[in-house]
Amino acid sequence: MSDPLNLLNEKSAKYSGPDSSRSVGWVVSRSVLLADEENPLPLDCGKTIAPVYVEYEVYGELNEAKDNAILIFHALSGDAHVAGWSKNADQLGRPWLKNRPGWWDDMVGPGKAFDTKKFFIICSNILGSCYGTTGPASIDPVTGRPYGLGFPVITVGDWVRLQERLVTYLGIKRLYAVAGGSIGGQQALEWALAYPDRVERALIIASSPRLSDQGLSFNVIARYAIRTDPNFHSGDYYGGSTPDRGLSVARMLGHITYLSEISMQNKFGRKFCNGAGPGYHLGVDFEVEGYLRHQSESFVERFDANSYLFITRAADYYDASLRGDGNLDQACQSIQCRTLLVSFSSDWLYPPEHMKELALAMSRNRKHVSYVNIPSSYGHDAFLLEVDRLSHVVKSFLEGGTE
Amino acid sequence: MSDPLNLLNEKSAKYSGPDSSRSVGWVVSRSVLLADEENPLPLDCGKTIAPVYVEYEVYGELNEAKDNAILIFHALSGDAHVAGWSKNADQLGRPWLKNRPGWWDDMVGPGKAFDTKKFFIICSNILGSCYGTTGPASIDPVTGRPYGLGFPVITVGDWVRLQERLVTYLGIKRLYAVAGGSIGGQQALEWALAYPDRVERALIIASSPRLSDQGLSFNVIARYAIRTDPNFHSGDYYGGSTPDRGLSVARMLGHITYLSEISMQNKFGRKFCNGAGPGYHLGVDFEVEGYLRHQSESFVERFDANSYLFITRAADYYDASLRGDGNLDQACQSIQCRTLLVSFSSDWLYPPEHMKELALAMSRNRKHVSYVNIPSSYGHDAFLLEVDRLSHVVKSFLEGGTE
Repeated sequence: MSDPLNLLNEKSAKYSGPDSSRSVGWVVSRSVLLADEENPLPLDCGKTIAPVYVEYEVYGELNEAKDNAILIFHALSGDAHVAGWSKNADQLGRPWLKNRPGWWDDMVGPGKAFDTKKFFIICSNILGSCYGTTGPASIDPVTGRPYGLGFPVITVGDWVRLQERLVTYLGIKRLYAVAGGSIGGQQALEWALAYPDRVERALIIASSPRLSDQGLSFNVIARYAIRTDPNFHSGDYYGGSTPDRGLSVARMLGHITYLSEISMQNKFGRKFCNGAGPGYHLGVDFEVEGYLRHQSESFVERFDANSYLFITRAADYYDASLRGDGNLDQACQSIQCRTLLVSFSSDWLYPPEHMKELALAMSRNRKHVSYVNIPSSYGHDAFLLEVDRLSHVVKSFLEGGTE
Repeated sequence: MSDPLNLLNEKSAKYSGPDSSRSVGWVVSRSVLLADEENPLPLDCGKTIAPVYVEYEVYGELNEAKDNAILIFHALSGDAHVAGWSKNADQLGRPWLKNRPGWWDDMVGPGKAFDTKKFFIICSNILGSCYGTTGPASIDPVTGRPYGLGFPVITVGDWVRLQERLVTYLGIKRLYAVAGGSIGGQQALEWALAYPDRVERALIIASSPRLSDQGLSFNVIARYAIRTDPNFHSGDYYGGSTPDRGLSVARMLGHITYLSEISMQNKFGRKFCNGAGPGYHLGVDFEVEGYLRHQSESFVERFDANSYLFITRAADYYDASLRGDGNLDQACQSIQCRTLLVSFSSDWLYPPEHMKELALAMSRNRKHVSYVNIPSSYGHDAFLLEVDRLSHVVKSFLEGGTE
């Protein structure tokens, strides 16, 4: 049994090792201070935060005109390491990065959909995460101790506001494109809405203008499980035992929403671990049970429960229509860039109908929008797995002529 | 905010109070010993169990020929109290029964779909539950203490085997019908398969021959949450603090699967509790959060976590095709009764396609099968809420002529 991400990475490892001509090769994560006491980052909640360090990676060359940069966004548990092989995994304290290429390596590299021979690719870790950018595990300058639950409640808008500082720091006035899947897609949409004059193209993939109440409910339960874990200690668990049981529940829940019913059936088909029949016990008996347990166990080793709380809350709160007083059509008026919207037929976390709603809102505003619903059985994970179909669509959009 | 069940009961309470001509009125739960040391109940796991007490209710009159009995099955968290108003709620130690009629009161009563003027209705609490029938909270005669996790792992087949004893005890050779929704529907199917000569009609509603891997996964996470609750103490928590946090997670998860995305949207629509906008905190902020919390809090007051473990495990294991070596067509060969299969269009826990699969398997065996997919936005809960449509179908099936 292996998860889609592992499948993806096995495939990448095979076809795109660090020495492959299709790989960006060895890469390093960098860190930059983008908000300090004199210039703190204002947040949607009304507070400000400083200092803010941002971890990011870049691949390819920024051309002289500085107009070939593409900003890519990661999803909930992702990081800045989009492609290639990490050279400083040990220094970062993330040894697991050594065993596999970046999370979208199939899409980013020489000759790939996001072609590093043509484009300068940037990806940064989001505010509140645990992979190098300031988050709940960082030291709160006021207390001298980790923020924990004292971290401000952040939003997709805050993420984008911080990314704008990174883009400016890199000397880029206008991005060739912004692109992301899942809540990465919501960041792309938010860029198009918040900085219309600084984006030429937005690729919004496996995403939607807002999470459904059903999607929201999964986050509610995930957070409840984390916060009621006896090791949670109101978020003040750093240096001690961590709330692994709660975070495991959260991750297992996540996995259900990333797969589709049909992909789970294809993958597991109610098979028993022993290959035979029921063992008549309450432990791990079906293969799908073993899969979920394994996924959650490896996840708690590499993710911070507090980050899970704050990032899912940002996902809950995101609602593009609020820029138009709850009216999505009105919100879309400010968009100036060309947009590509991609959904996947079996994605039920960000269902095609929601993307279609966005496409229609843009169309009614006579915006330049292309909408593609890719047939796939992979559910939400399709944005990581439907590489061939997605590459074709993305490449055409990025490299096609502008009429 | 109120849950569908409450909605249902508000409606029932209004139209079908204990004195209403449409109500079965005041009812009492009875208890009977159906397995003792000399005649223990054999179980699919290979063990036996004794003593086994069964709580049940009956409404209407058994006719002289004893051929008008209908056995109804409850779902996961249900009980024997299908209809009417409980007269002995306090003696049973279940005060909440006083505030509302039975769980299928809209369907069972004089002139209703299951017409108590014509039929003798029986419902018993399943083995392993916590509402009167022997379960994990009962005393294990070997240890003199509650079974806890020492309770045997039970199956849908075991439930039906015990129900057969009840039917025999009541002097009934052949049932006019068996009927249930959700895992109640699986019990109806199992009756048709296990006791083909003792059932004339089987009504299998909002159910399927087996749970999908996706459905299974929800149960896996629910059990994980319960078993990792620090109050769980390997199931030995009786008399002390109970694993409420784990059971809350389980119940909230359950609610997501009982509703549909569209019914959640209609019900909550991402509304905030304060009626305005985001409160920028991690607590209860959306109405759907409040709803889930409230549902789970009231549930932990009235359900035993160990019962949740054993009943969901029985639901996991059920697979009608195993009676035909994994071939559903072959399994269906033994069926002799007329069957009515009812699914609901937006039910994603027991999706219509799975019911259709069963209908086709029966058809290919030239069995007398009627299949109806009722359009509904209520998701799995539709079997409790789509009273008018369901009543029409059920009544026609029960009272229609036999050709």
